[in-house]
This record gives sequence, C-alpha cells and structure tokens, in this order.
Amino acid sequence: MIARTVYLGFLGCGNIGGGTYHLLERMRTDLEERFGLRFEVKKALVKEIATARKDIPASVYTERAEDVFGDPDITVVCEFMGGAEPAASFMAEALRRGKHVVTANKVAFANHWDRLQAAADEGHAGLYYEASVGGAIPVIRTLTEALEADRVGEIMGIVNGTTNYILTRMSKEGSSYAAVLADAQRLGLAEPDPTADVEGMDAACKIAILASLAFHGRVRVDSVYTEGITRVTAADIAFGREMGYTLKLLAIAKRAGDTVEARVHPTFLPDSHPLARVDGSLNAIFLRGESGKDIMLQGRGAGEEPTATAVVGNILDAVLSARPARPSFRVTAENAFGVTENWTTGFSIRLRAVDQPGVLSRVSDCFAKEGVSIATMMQKGAAEDGWVQLVLVTHPTREQSLRRALENLDPAICAPESVIRVEA
Amino acid sequence: MIARTVYLGFLGCGNIGGGTYHLLERMRTDLEERFGLRFEVKKALVKEIATARKDIPASVYTERAEDVFGDPDITVVCEFMGGAEPAASFMAEALRRGKHVVTANKVAFANHWDRLQAAADEGHAGLYYEASVGGAIPVIRTLTEALEADRVGEIMGIVNGTTNYILTRMSKEGSSYAAVLADAQRLGLAEPDPTADVEGMDAACKIAILASLAFHGRVRVDSVYTEGITRVTAADIAFGREMGYTLKLLAIAKRAGDTVEARVHPTFLPDSHPLARVDGSLNAIFLRGESGKDIMLQGRGAGEEPTATAVVGNILDAVLSARPARPSFRVTAENAFGVTENWTTGFSIRLRAVDQPGVLSRVSDCFAKEGVSIATMMQKGAAEDGWVQLVLVTHPTREQSLRRALENLDPAICAPESVIRVEA
Repeated sequence: MIARTVYLGFLGCGNIGGGTYHLLERMRTDLEERFGLRFEVKKALVKEIATARKDIPASVYTERAEDVFGDPDITVVCEFMGGAEPAASFMAEALRRGKHVVTANKVAFANHWDRLQAAADEGHAGLYYEASVGGAIPVIRTLTEALEADRVGEIMGIVNGTTNYILTRMSKEGSSYAAVLADAQRLGLAEPDPTADVEGMDAACKIAILASLAFHGRVRVDSVYTEGITRVTAADIAFGREMGYTLKLLAIAKRAGDTVEARVHPTFLPDSHPLARVDGSLNAIFLRGESGKDIMLQGRGAGEEPTATAVVGNILDAVLSARPARPSFRVTAENAFGVTENWTTGFSIRLRAVDQPGVLSRVSDCFAKEGVSIATMMQKGAAEDGWVQLVLVTHPTREQSLRRALENLDPAICAPESVIRVEA
Repeated sequence: MIARTVYLGFLGCGNIGGGTYHLLERMRTDLEERFGLRFEVKKALVKEIATARKDIPASVYTERAEDVFGDPDITVVCEFMGGAEPAASFMAEALRRGKHVVTANKVAFANHWDRLQAAADEGHAGLYYEASVGGAIPVIRTLTEALEADRVGEIMGIVNGTTNYILTRMSKEGSSYAAVLADAQRLGLAEPDPTADVEGMDAACKIAILASLAFHGRVRVDSVYTEGITRVTAADIAFGREMGYTLKLLAIAKRAGDTVEARVHPTFLPDSHPLARVDGSLNAIFLRGESGKDIMLQGRGAGEEPTATAVVGNILDAVLSARPARPSFRVTAENAFGVTENWTTGFSIRLRAVDQPGVLSRVSDCFAKEGVSIATMMQKGAAEDGWVQLVLVTHPTREQSLRRALENLDPAICAPESVIRVEA
C-alpha cells in the first residue's frame, strides 16, 4: 500500500495537543500498516511561540490562526484551546473552509453546537468530538453509531475525574472536602481554579452533549440543573455509608415523551450499583436503551494519553469516512424538548432540629402535606445545646414537592443542613 | 427528506431473526426520521415454511437460499442460521454477489473469516459481525474504530451468559453445577445441549475474534486453549471466596511482540476486580491499550432484543457507509502470530494428600523444582480416612512449569483434585 500523507493543523497545543502529537509519533508505523496513512502536524497555533512546549519542533508553531485554517494542505484541524471563544469561532471558520474539525473542547462544543454544525454543513466537513466526553471511553461513538438502532431513555454518568477523585478519597478517609481538594491540586488532579469541575459545570456540558445525542434533539447546557460538590461533608458521606449508599457526582438525563430532565448533583447510589464502584479519577457512563437494555462503559475520562486516543480515533474517522459524520437530528439553537425541573428522585435530608417532643411529628407533617413519603428517619448522635441531628430518607418523589416541603419547615424548630438526592 | 427503501434478506429466522424483524418494525418511524431510510425484509430463508415463526408474514419466507442471495433488490443479507455450514458458504455467496452481510454467528465467522473476507473483497461488499460477540455491547466497533488509534495488548472477557449465570448462582447459593445447570435449562437460560457454552467453545470463538481485531492478525479458534466449567465444584468456589476471589469463566488474550496467548478457562479474580462483579447473564469485556489504558464495556451479551440492536446497528453501517467496512489487517487462513501455551498466571490447586508429617514439604519440593513459588498453602477441614484437603495458591508462574510440577507429584501421597487459574 502506498502511503498517503494527511496534513493536520492544531489550534492550541497544551497537554492534549502534545499528547496527540506524541501519540501520532508512537503510532506512526502502525497507522501506516493499518491504513496506508502518514500524519504530519503542519501547523500548530499557540498564544506565544517562545513559551510553547519544547518537545515539539518550534517550526511547527504559529501565532496566526489563519496559518492553520487558511492552509490548503491541511485537511483536518484539531482544536485544543479550551474555553468557548475564540475556539468556537476558529472551529467554525475551519469547517466553513471545508476542513474537518476534531475537538476535545466540551465547553465550546456544547455551547455552540448549532453554529458549528451549520458551518460543517456549509463546508461539507465533518465535526468530531469523542474527546469532549469521557476521554478514552468511546461513548460518543456508541451513541452516534451503535445505539442508532435503539431508543435511549436514560443516561447516568460519572463524567468528571476531579470530583470523583475527591469524593472517593473523602469516602475512604473520612477527610474534609477542603483537605482533599488541596491535596488534589498539589497532585495536579485538580486545577488551580477548580470551579468548572467542583461546581459541576464541566459535567453539565458533558451531559448536555450526551443527552442531545441520546434523545436526538438539542439539550442546551443552560437547561442542565447544576449543583457541584462544594457543600458535601464527610458527615453526609458517613451517614450515607451507614445506609448502604455511596456518594457520587452524577450527571443524569432522562426522557419521557417530549420532555427531558437533565441534572448534575451529588447523588447517593446503592453500594451494589455498578457506578458506585467507579473510583478515583475513572469515568463511567451507564446507558439504558429500550431494546439493548443497560450498557455501561468505563475507563480513563481524562489525561493526555487517553484523551489523545479519542482525538486520533476521530482523525481516522475524518480521513477514512467509514460513516459520514453528521448528526441524525437537527442541531437547533434552542432546546428541542420541554425541559422539566420536576423530576422524580429520592432525597436524603440532614436536619438540625430542636430536641423537643413533637418535633418529628411536625417535620413529617410538612413532608406529608406535599405528598412526600418518608422511608426512614434517624436521629444521629446525642442532643447538643438542645438541638439534634436527624437524617430523613424519602421515597422517590417530585423535586418541586420536596422543595416546597423544605420551604414549609418552621425554622424555629428545624433547619435543613444538607439535601442529597438518591437514585435507586 | 425523501425516504429510501432498503431491501433486506434473512438467512435463518429464529430468535435473533425474529428479534431483528420486530426491532425494525418498532424503530420504523425513528429510522425514517433519523436517516431517511425504510427497511423491508423481502425474503427470509427458513428450513421449513410450515414450522417457521408465525409472527412474520408467511409470504416473506422461502426455503431456497437462491431467493435471498440471488435477488437483485436485496442489498444487505442478515445471517441468523447458526453453526459453521451452510451458513459460511451462504454468506460467502451473498458477499461475492456484492451484498453486504451482517452476521450474529460467531462459529461461522470465527472459523471461516478468511474465506468470508476474501468473498467480501471480491464482491466489494461489507462484512459486519458486531452481534457475534457481546450482544448489545459495542465491543467490535470499539476495537475496529475507537481503538485503531492505540495498541491493545490485553483482553479479558466474560463473554458467555449461560456459564456466567451458572457460576453466579453456584457462588451465591453454594449449589452444585449439575443442579444449577438443570435449573438454567428449565428457565431457557441454557440450551438443551449446553456443550458449546459449558465446555467453553462459544467463548473460544469470541476471544478468537476479539484477539484478531485487537492484535491486527488472525488468531484461529483452534489456537485457543479451551476449558469449560463442567468440573467446577461448589467447594472450589467456597475456598476461593475465603481467599477473597470470585470465580468466572474468563476469555483471555494477551500479546507480547509476535507471540500471543489465547485461553478460556475458569479463573479466580480478586473480589475488587471490576469483572468480578459482573453477574448473572451479563457480559463484560475489559480492554487494555497502551495509550487509552483500561476500558471496560458491559451489558446484555445475549437475548433477542439486545442482539437485534447490534444487528440493526450493522445494517445501518452497511447502508450509510461511503465505503464498505474492511479490516485494517490481512485476514489470513493461518495464524498471524506464534501462539504460546506457556503463559504466566497464578494457580489455585486443591489436593488430596495423605495425613503424614513431611507431606507438605515433599509437595512444595515438587513445585520448587520447577521454579513454581507458593504464595499460600492451607489445610481445609479435618483429616478423613487418613487424607487431608490442601489448597495451594502459587505466585504467577509459567503454565508449563506448573503442569510439570503436577506431573511430578507422587500419587501415593497426593493427587490434584482441581486446578483453577488466578488472574490478579
């Protein structure tokens, strides 16, 4: 087989860019044997050549975006810039000019998907984003190819390695959130500014992408109810463990007819649930299809090498075009579905209550009034200064009913200290 | 979008054929909306129309294979016959005539892959087999697309639902193999003739397929060391559990340079291993790539509906691809690699030994002579009639060393009763 050279352009060249460059080098012989393809990174856009990675020849670098999307030799552009802009605008320009785009950027992709797809349609180019969710785990491909034969009604995922690492250590050690976060930052497992991870926004971008693919209609990032792990305490985790639950930051999306729910929040799972044992910085996505039933995919959701394998997998897709990369639904600017915040789930509520007879009865009355059924109620520890700790677990109930019940509690006699949702 | 009709032919129409037919009906509107495609099963070959499934119109059936692969309207042929022949010959004929083939038949595919690929090349047709391994789990697609960017060095899978169901129940209940098998047959979870499942041949076909894809070279079914579960006892499972192990029938393939090992046998896994908790009739495949690291895929490995989703996924691949699917390595008739039976693994050996001083010393000498290092040795229970039960666990060691050590044991003083391999 006579090898064909494919010229690549990079937008950005940090960890994932460097990882991709080196993976292509390591796999040079294999890719030539397997496909008759040679890949050359012709140009890589960086902010400043002087401070760019030294393990890539300086001649590859440019500070001008036009050198990447304006070069007629370059057929595939890989975007590694991060952030919404100018990444989305650069990708759109490359697509309009007929260049395939492979991105790892869940923020730009999830927020500007309609613009990007329109640019791809205009340029007759392919838009690929396997690396934007789940690193090496082939979840995008599973949804866009394997599961087109099915109707997927539910997704539950651990899609952020930083928060999974933090919660795993808090669970194993009984440590505080602040202590484990500091350690994670020291070890490079959390960013200096960890907000996007710990506040759940990273997971929200990812579930917006997965839900759109699964349900065949746009689910916007700003429709995703987003609650991170910053208020999780070691006590909550311990109480959960006593009840046979493991705490995870879950990204959940479900569809019923033309209504979807999409949410990210700390969630108690029974210890026996497959997702409950996905620890450290691993990711896992659980998909439920009508005919295929339950599938779970797990692996390294982040890291240079795992993410680079997803990028190179997409470069191969773009060049080999086994199946044209177009979504099988129209990517609209607005949501394709009604989005509800009145989902059904269980709740574990930790309350501070005055240590007086009749308090339990008044608390359960508040819940009963809203139709919220209590499965268990426990007092934790002894009274202190006239207050006790109660932990209530409800049966699955409507979110809005629970919120109203909490609002109706008399602050003179009790106050919720934490509210954690429970998925059976 | 104006819908295009695609005519399908079925070879065989039992459970999976019926499942596929009905899935296509259920998904009619979705597939038209998603892809502008309508599917019509034009002809289905059956042995005898009079006894064929009644839930498919009799007009679809034929008893002549020529009506399927000779029909110019039919562009995709789905093979559901099972068994090596005449399935393989019929598939080859369809491929030569330019019809894409989608199969669920691991026996025909694994044993005749080179012939089938040659016929596909001749007819410029695509050959698809996602449904042959792992049911709804998209493992074939993961290997042939996602992981082309990587080098996969190791696969471990639970790929047979019948044996996993039996071992799970034996573990949970302490029941005997015979009792659980009989129950499984009664429940339709094991065949009347369960040989292919319980003797490991089904798993051997599957690992031959997965290993060939992972290592990019043919691994023949007859190269796979195959040992089923028929000699597993409740006592072995219980001893394993005391040591923190779970027993699974594992299909394992590893590559080191130009040598591969491929084996199916009962295996102890630490309880903490993700595969250890894949229970009942679920399947799971664990893949280790150099760059992507570890990925695990799990789900329903069998059953009408899950398998049908894999078949329809491949029908879509066949119809939507710009170019027919081709493997990225040459599918030879003979193995592409040296195949070794001298792999490295741990062993758990249950022995009957005379209850005399010095026996332990002589037993460990036999092992030491072959360089087999013993990690633990335990006496189980009390002496009976002058004999005791010993359970030995070795450190990872060469298979051939272990076999020689066992041969050198003096049958007058001890006899191995079970040998179960251990993967850490």
